[in-house]
Amino acid sequence: MQNTALGRKLGAFVALSAPEISALESLHKRRRTFVAGRDLVHQGQSEQAAYILASGWAVSYKIMEDGQRQIVDFQIPGDFLGLRSVLFHLSDHSVEPVTNIDVTEILLPDLLDAFSRTPRLAMAILWAASRDEAMVVEHLVGIGRREATERMAHFLLELGARLALVGMGSKAGFDCPLTQYHLADALGLSAVHTNRVLRKLREWGMLTFRSGTVRFDDYDRLAEFAKFDPTYLDQTGPLLK
Amino acid sequence: MQNTALGRKLGAFVALSAPEISALESLHKRRRTFVAGRDLVHQGQSEQAAYILASGWAVSYKIMEDGQRQIVDFQIPGDFLGLRSVLFHLSDHSVEPVTNIDVTEILLPDLLDAFSRTPRLAMAILWAASRDEAMVVEHLVGIGRREATERMAHFLLELGARLALVGMGSKAGFDCPLTQYHLADALGLSAVHTNRVLRKLREWGMLTFRSGTVRFDDYDRLAEFAKFDPTYLDQTGPLLK
Repeated sequence: MQNTALGRKLGAFVALSAPEISALESLHKRRRTFVAGRDLVHQGQSEQAAYILASGWAVSYKIMEDGQRQIVDFQIPGDFLGLRSVLFHLSDHSVEPVTNIDVTEILLPDLLDAFSRTPRLAMAILWAASRDEAMVVEHLVGIGRREATERMAHFLLELGARLALVGMGSKAGFDCPLTQYHLADALGLSAVHTNRVLRKLREWGMLTFRSGTVRFDDYDRLAEFAKFDPTYLDQTGPLLK
Repeated sequence: MQNTALGRKLGAFVALSAPEISALESLHKRRRTFVAGRDLVHQGQSEQAAYILASGWAVSYKIMEDGQRQIVDFQIPGDFLGLRSVLFHLSDHSVEPVTNIDVTEILLPDLLDAFSRTPRLAMAILWAASRDEAMVVEHLVGIGRREATERMAHFLLELGARLALVGMGSKAGFDCPLTQYHLADALGLSAVHTNRVLRKLREWGMLTFRSGTVRFDDYDRLAEFAKFDPTYLDQTGPLLK
């Protein structure tokens, strides 16, 4: 079980005991599959389920009244989809699979049951939600304060670090199903601007974004350029022993 | 106890039983006071405490390497200060009191103890953290997609709704210690632009921002203009009975 992506991720916060691992396993009862492009969490819907992503990528977003869309974040294996939605009367956002995905469905009673069995697992889930919030905060800082090229570099470094935690990336790069259109919608850039920014990073010898791959050509120089400090991802090993 | 701001706020998610109220009370052991302008949560610091705000206002923010500051949110009575920081190795943000404030200090063992006593209180704290995240998401959407005047209107309506939940505001308005400088830093606007936007809203007869007060001159028209849908604040009564 600790080999699942969520188990690996939570391991960065808490060294789970055998009964805690079993409580985490009990959350993985109902496996489901969703195809790319069809929403599984729906903004405005009540009694929405949450999901743990086992494989594939997803994107969470909000639709404005005028139809504009703002991407909030991308989800990778080990991430919750719609965790807020299961606690709220109505879901405040939507989640769409970027690729075909495998998930486990979670309803409010499942969460309550797991919380009753082990308070440390409850803390770990609070930690994961807090880490999600820390990432949204960084995206807010990015849109509010970072110049476009730096914002792009920071964002792709963040994705790389998150993927590394679940064994899907390294300082060399990662497999990436996102399009330039996804990046534009997440970073508040036009398609033309996104293309220009990615070309710049490639010409500077720092990063190559290709269909299906992000390659860090010079990780250290890229991290320095983006002033990337991964403290907010809190991946340096368990605080709760 | 249910009369404290946090008890009132959590009551929007869960109808707390007597033992749950007593577990919540147990979190309120160490009362402290901080003066306006002196940080109580420090970006980059380890073993940071978290706090429950009992009275007064605070502001959470991030400082960039070049000294720029991005305000993430303001905190009002019943809100956690630095909840993430207590779960992370290093705090990823700072919190400064806007006014003199009264708080209760919370350390990791306090939280773990409360979580052990009642899973429903743990869920309620996860709900509160999720609601904080939902607000940061709205601020991201605001900076990414809303025109400046709409962004300002939306932000002040959100503050009004949050304050109403803890008995400190209504559709007529609320007492507000924030300056135009705070609003500018939260909304990514210049001081001049902030001033112009507030003048517009006043001239349109929708809202008056004065030293110490926000008055909603025409709440319904303002809410329509800002397309304010408070779903994401999830204040419509307990989901967990």
